[in-house]
Amino acid sequence: MTHINQNFLKLPGGYLFPEISRRVKAFSAQNPPMPLIKLGIGDVTLPLAPAVVEAMAKATEEMGRRETFRGYCEETGCAYDFLRFAIQGSYRDCGVEIADDEIFVSDGAKSDCGNIGDIFSVDNVVAVCDPVYPVYVDTNAMAGRAGDFDGEKWTDLVYLPCTAENGFFPALPQGKVPDLIYICSPNNPTGTAATKEQLKTWVDYANAHGSIILYDSAYEAFITEPGIPHSIYEVEGAGTCAIEFRSFSKTAGFTGTRCAYTVVPKALEREGVSLNALWSRRQGTKFNGVSYVVQRAAEAVFTPEGRAQTRENIAYYLNNARVIKSGLEQAGLTVYGGVNAPYIWARTPEGVGSWDFFDTLLHKACVVTTPGAGFGPAGEGYIRLTAFGGAEATEEAVERIVKLL
Amino acid sequence: MTHINQNFLKLPGGYLFPEISRRVKAFSAQNPPMPLIKLGIGDVTLPLAPAVVEAMAKATEEMGRRETFRGYCEETGCAYDFLRFAIQGSYRDCGVEIADDEIFVSDGAKSDCGNIGDIFSVDNVVAVCDPVYPVYVDTNAMAGRAGDFDGEKWTDLVYLPCTAENGFFPALPQGKVPDLIYICSPNNPTGTAATKEQLKTWVDYANAHGSIILYDSAYEAFITEPGIPHSIYEVEGAGTCAIEFRSFSKTAGFTGTRCAYTVVPKALEREGVSLNALWSRRQGTKFNGVSYVVQRAAEAVFTPEGRAQTRENIAYYLNNARVIKSGLEQAGLTVYGGVNAPYIWARTPEGVGSWDFFDTLLHKACVVTTPGAGFGPAGEGYIRLTAFGGAEATEEAVERIVKLL
Repeated sequence: MTHINQNFLKLPGGYLFPEISRRVKAFSAQNPPMPLIKLGIGDVTLPLAPAVVEAMAKATEEMGRRETFRGYCEETGCAYDFLRFAIQGSYRDCGVEIADDEIFVSDGAKSDCGNIGDIFSVDNVVAVCDPVYPVYVDTNAMAGRAGDFDGEKWTDLVYLPCTAENGFFPALPQGKVPDLIYICSPNNPTGTAATKEQLKTWVDYANAHGSIILYDSAYEAFITEPGIPHSIYEVEGAGTCAIEFRSFSKTAGFTGTRCAYTVVPKALEREGVSLNALWSRRQGTKFNGVSYVVQRAAEAVFTPEGRAQTRENIAYYLNNARVIKSGLEQAGLTVYGGVNAPYIWARTPEGVGSWDFFDTLLHKACVVTTPGAGFGPAGEGYIRLTAFGGAEATEEAVERIVKLL
Repeated sequence: MTHINQNFLKLPGGYLFPEISRRVKAFSAQNPPMPLIKLGIGDVTLPLAPAVVEAMAKATEEMGRRETFRGYCEETGCAYDFLRFAIQGSYRDCGVEIADDEIFVSDGAKSDCGNIGDIFSVDNVVAVCDPVYPVYVDTNAMAGRAGDFDGEKWTDLVYLPCTAENGFFPALPQGKVPDLIYICSPNNPTGTAATKEQLKTWVDYANAHGSIILYDSAYEAFITEPGIPHSIYEVEGAGTCAIEFRSFSKTAGFTGTRCAYTVVPKALEREGVSLNALWSRRQGTKFNGVSYVVQRAAEAVFTPEGRAQTRENIAYYLNNARVIKSGLEQAGLTVYGGVNAPYIWARTPEGVGSWDFFDTLLHKACVVTTPGAGFGPAGEGYIRLTAFGGAEATEEAVERIVKLL
């Protein structure tokens, strides 16, 4: 008799986004007084940049001719040299030197953040920030590293609270030493970005304890303030303790195009084994690379035209972020994020729970947000808004909220 | 201190295709007398069909306009309805009724064959055919289901020998009852295809023992003989014991475009849990779907033009298969496969090992093949040739082999 992976059964049924979707649907069925504006899920709305579309169209044409057709991508890191070299160049621009065979291209940072667990033993202790992007938690729960869910927390995870008091950046843990530490900066959901000094404390901690930092920098393109590192490898010592995940999803509007990359330094070893070699083996065995046309589209993000066009799109979203931030502040809320990130993390009015505030905004302003409690216990008392909507819709959503409050 | 997944260290270093690549490179460096012809790795050479290229170009254009741009694919099965419905229709054409939410689209059958392990407990007993596509073995070894490699076999796997004597179709096991049974038909590497009666014995066995059949039908489009099932669901009872993997890679030349799909019937339960729900949760948490442009390209495979053009390409490869088969027979070899599959499985001359015969063909005929021993112990004494080359190159390769032998 086949046995299933019982860890799946421990996952709570009411996963965040489906629950939001359920409430939104139920409300929509009641004929809301105004059209709904969705500032909940972090999905982009601007089209692909012209340089990207052009590169993809050209690659599509190549796939239709025998002389230029491409089959399996047999090159290093499940990626063509042209894309790995372009990524390498972009790291060089922020002063970070990465070898091209330290770069692995994939279909998404979510996939890599989840699949990376394959190369680690099940008995590692995992630390996550609280609040946190649910994928880090759920994938480790599936693998058996989270223990049991007690209705609020997983018994075996180390939670690192990120609150207004600590500037939404986690302090080093006092008790159990975690082996795998997820850090996301700029952060989803809090919208805050770590300084080099903050990251240095964790890099030093990881090197001292032999831990690994799993660093998600999917939102690095939204950093506006100087001095905030775009890559953890800007921090001395990170090469021996950190794996970095990046994505074209938010940087270049690739949520429906699918391309990301992960850096695993060759200097990164544990138990005498190269993690780069392990990840290479994992990807070579369980993955076949990203579509040629998508890799060409991703390459175009790094051309002068691609960069300029992409920057414009990011400026558009960051303007939305400013509109949300100043509007909510005007409405009397305490607001974080939105300066180096496409997320705004707003405190709910005194004494109002995050699901209640979510419901109020949905029912009274017809604006969809994300309740902070959905990202972990320390997210209670907050809501997250995303800056990825259209400019007009975002302005209207903010006006409605201001009026309501 | 972070612990690595020690199972990775058990994998033998000399993986098949890298070893072939190493030998080919070493030989190439000696200035071979004739240009090399590669009939080793099963990669396609014909370009994408015009209908597919057209659909992809149109989708690319859509991604560049705001009104038609697509972000995250939020629909069922990590896929757009249009593609799931097209796949559903193609099943209907061979008399199989599949619900659209039993279909999950991914970037490759290799990924799915590997990732499917996530939903099963590590303590399941796994059976593989011998010879076998190495991915089934290696992914289970990584997950800890294979035990140790003794230099020839993995201690915990159940090997099902497929030899000329049993028509390259495995007999039911006598000893340990396997929980997860990989069957590939048309088979890689032997090129043979199972009949409905043969499959029925395994479906009945799986239903009787509560086992799951992981059925890889990536090569179903190459079936030419009537009566050979294209899907395991043509066999009565398969809906309660089988998961089916399919791919556009060989069917429509998508090895560099990346799209596949997996069917998990809703009737499939173990320990009271729906495997469809488990896979849905796994994919929803660790995967974000396939690029919109690629899904549109895949949809076009099922249009009347797409079907006709794809059929032509397959006929081209099957003609190569015939050329190889009759050529090798003329040279005195005993040859299997090539009728319902793009692979030819040829017995080496009496007393010659498969790596030795591989070397002879490489050095004396400048033809790259795959030694059967690389697919498992029962592959010793065979070589595999693929029909995916160009027609002229294939003819020349065969002429060289005939001359040599």
